[in-house]
Amino acid sequence: MSKVRIAILGLGTVSTGVCKVIDINKEQILKRSGYDIEIAKILVRDIHKERELKFNEGILTTDPEEIFSDDSIKIVVELIGGIEPAKEYILRAINNKKHVVTANKALISNYGDEILNAAEKAGVKLYYEGSVAGGIPIIHGINESLTANKISEIIGIINGTTNYILTKMTFQNMEFKQALEEAQAKGYAEADPTSDIEGFDAVYKLTVLASLAFGTEVDVKDVYREGITKISKADIEFARDLGYVVKLLAIGREKDGKLELRVHPTFIPKMHPLANVNDVYNAIYIKGNAVGDLMLYGKGAGEMPTGSAVVSDIISVLRHNMDNTYTVSQRNIFWDKKVIPMEKTVSEYYLRFAVKDIPGVLGEITTLFGKNGVSIYSVIQKGKKGDPVVPIALITHSTEEHKINKSIEAISKLPFVVGLESLVRVITE
Amino acid sequence: MSKVRIAILGLGTVSTGVCKVIDINKEQILKRSGYDIEIAKILVRDIHKERELKFNEGILTTDPEEIFSDDSIKIVVELIGGIEPAKEYILRAINNKKHVVTANKALISNYGDEILNAAEKAGVKLYYEGSVAGGIPIIHGINESLTANKISEIIGIINGTTNYILTKMTFQNMEFKQALEEAQAKGYAEADPTSDIEGFDAVYKLTVLASLAFGTEVDVKDVYREGITKISKADIEFARDLGYVVKLLAIGREKDGKLELRVHPTFIPKMHPLANVNDVYNAIYIKGNAVGDLMLYGKGAGEMPTGSAVVSDIISVLRHNMDNTYTVSQRNIFWDKKVIPMEKTVSEYYLRFAVKDIPGVLGEITTLFGKNGVSIYSVIQKGKKGDPVVPIALITHSTEEHKINKSIEAISKLPFVVGLESLVRVITE
Repeated sequence: MSKVRIAILGLGTVSTGVCKVIDINKEQILKRSGYDIEIAKILVRDIHKERELKFNEGILTTDPEEIFSDDSIKIVVELIGGIEPAKEYILRAINNKKHVVTANKALISNYGDEILNAAEKAGVKLYYEGSVAGGIPIIHGINESLTANKISEIIGIINGTTNYILTKMTFQNMEFKQALEEAQAKGYAEADPTSDIEGFDAVYKLTVLASLAFGTEVDVKDVYREGITKISKADIEFARDLGYVVKLLAIGREKDGKLELRVHPTFIPKMHPLANVNDVYNAIYIKGNAVGDLMLYGKGAGEMPTGSAVVSDIISVLRHNMDNTYTVSQRNIFWDKKVIPMEKTVSEYYLRFAVKDIPGVLGEITTLFGKNGVSIYSVIQKGKKGDPVVPIALITHSTEEHKINKSIEAISKLPFVVGLESLVRVITE
Repeated sequence: MSKVRIAILGLGTVSTGVCKVIDINKEQILKRSGYDIEIAKILVRDIHKERELKFNEGILTTDPEEIFSDDSIKIVVELIGGIEPAKEYILRAINNKKHVVTANKALISNYGDEILNAAEKAGVKLYYEGSVAGGIPIIHGINESLTANKISEIIGIINGTTNYILTKMTFQNMEFKQALEEAQAKGYAEADPTSDIEGFDAVYKLTVLASLAFGTEVDVKDVYREGITKISKADIEFARDLGYVVKLLAIGREKDGKLELRVHPTFIPKMHPLANVNDVYNAIYIKGNAVGDLMLYGKGAGEMPTGSAVVSDIISVLRHNMDNTYTVSQRNIFWDKKVIPMEKTVSEYYLRFAVKDIPGVLGEITTLFGKNGVSIYSVIQKGKKGDPVVPIALITHSTEEHKINKSIEAISKLPFVVGLESLVRVITE
């Protein structure tokens, strides 16, 4: 049995998971990779910081050069996150002919192309299963198992924090703020939760997935983004009454060679396979022209699930004897596909207006929708007799977004309309 | 772009799917494999039979020698099914240094070891993703993506026919016979449905999955098997009342180095991820010690989904340039694990007795359970006042199967007990 020396950059949650997995599943890994993995170096900022795991003298280092200049280290595992110095370190590892495994979604979504190209040229492997959806093998799935398919759609619940918050709002009738506080108390949301609740995290992940699924470069800036901060208990209840649940979805679709890419809260039918994905679980739903509908479900984050993905990537590098025998590019970029602007996308819409409760309100509103080419599928008017302002919630039939925008503009000018309180897109299948 | 010539053995449903996938996704496959795939030969029994697809003169052949002796054919795709002549053909292909892709569950479950060994020795690849759960990439998932895990449990809905029948029984209140007839009318069940409804098909598939997941040889004969023919509408209704649904599950578990392997109808809680897998869909639920819970869901059979799996396997052979660079055996057999006998397995149980409706019945029955060390979790007694015979349905707490058997033996002797009408195992998480 050969020994292989690896180095890890960073020693946070995921790194700790990687060290634990390598330790507790030593025999498993040995059998399946053919190698005994030795963690030779771990790059940290402070050697003396109190940590859960203890390491032998000399393993922790603050000097990256000890890793990059050491020819006996064959694989570098980048887990510091963010753009710099992660990017510089990965390029240095590649240039020193080391294989790279990373779980860095921000880096891959923004600079994946540059980094994969560099790896390609240097003849080393670069795997990044851990960058999206933790332990769920979605990247491997697209790159190795669904290769015979033309993928037309990829829809994911790929942010555990927001899924936890929406689950709490749904099942425990919490408002957003209370659910967020609970998520923070449980460690599912960060002190500054912006990246999760505003959808930035999901945009990074969708960029990575869409690029692979559709075989084209995808720019983070081309992904429409809307977080869940405006979703209220009232919307969750209307969704329930209408037969839906609310989820933050990352949606990628290809039609006629053009892409739709968007992250936003969405009404999904109660019977949809994604509707029952709750708490911090993630799931990715794919449509391929051969495989049909496929869904992968599991833990999208955390020390051990992401550790599972990273260590499985290390094993993949080792299993093929660290040879780079691919006949085709690891980049998987084969086409140049354009993203269509949001106003040209087609969807159904949930809209909630606050209106003064006078006769004829509904008639005038639906007339204005009709004039803008939008037809209504379902309407609920709530509120008690005597309330000065009541909510009207509607679901439209499928329509282009610009028609919805025009309708809202016209309806907002009606004297008895107080305002648009909520707009959530709807998917039906 | 290189060209590669392949041959297909058989031209039934899956072969037709393979030909269609290779045709409609030609560009996709070219980009992802680096090869232009040419179907050079297809082995059939009758060249002149009327078929959906048309082929150029010379492609269809009844002579296997035309394939095995042709050195320009690099990959043989076996899709005739069954043991012989499939096995002989595969071994001949291997001996002629051809890579093999198959979707033959009966063959892999019974002779996988022999065939994989032969491939190993000849230095060719043998892939069989299509043999279990159609388009769901479960074999690739276990072999390539979950390699860093010790898998403790694999639970699958891996037979579409029985899942369709149970779904009809559940949502349309059909009895088994009627649901089976509908499945046959729709082409989801064969004229002789034995292999599906008696669980043989699921046993083959579980054998393949368990062998990979637990890294040990598994004998088809060691898998406990029970079909769904005894499940009645009454059981489905009791399940509903008690908060469960009924599914035919294939269960593989490892505990302390010993295996539990069984296929039988099972009560599963309504909130379990497998509970919402309906119609002909399949799903496989896995527990790994790093990844946690993972579920893969999709179409378990059919021309295109299975075609997707087979063609993705062909691409996998090609992507690595047909080199056999693995550092470890393709067989993935590393340990020798024993299967524990069914009577020593632990489960919860649903039991339905028919009893004469006289006072004290329930007391005497539960007393006998207690004497045999079985405690009761939940009881429902149905039937109208005046019915001479009524059903009593119970769910036990977790217990060993031999204790249940002893309890039933004792209870059956009670004078007012007409008989045990139903026994279904229960899983709780």
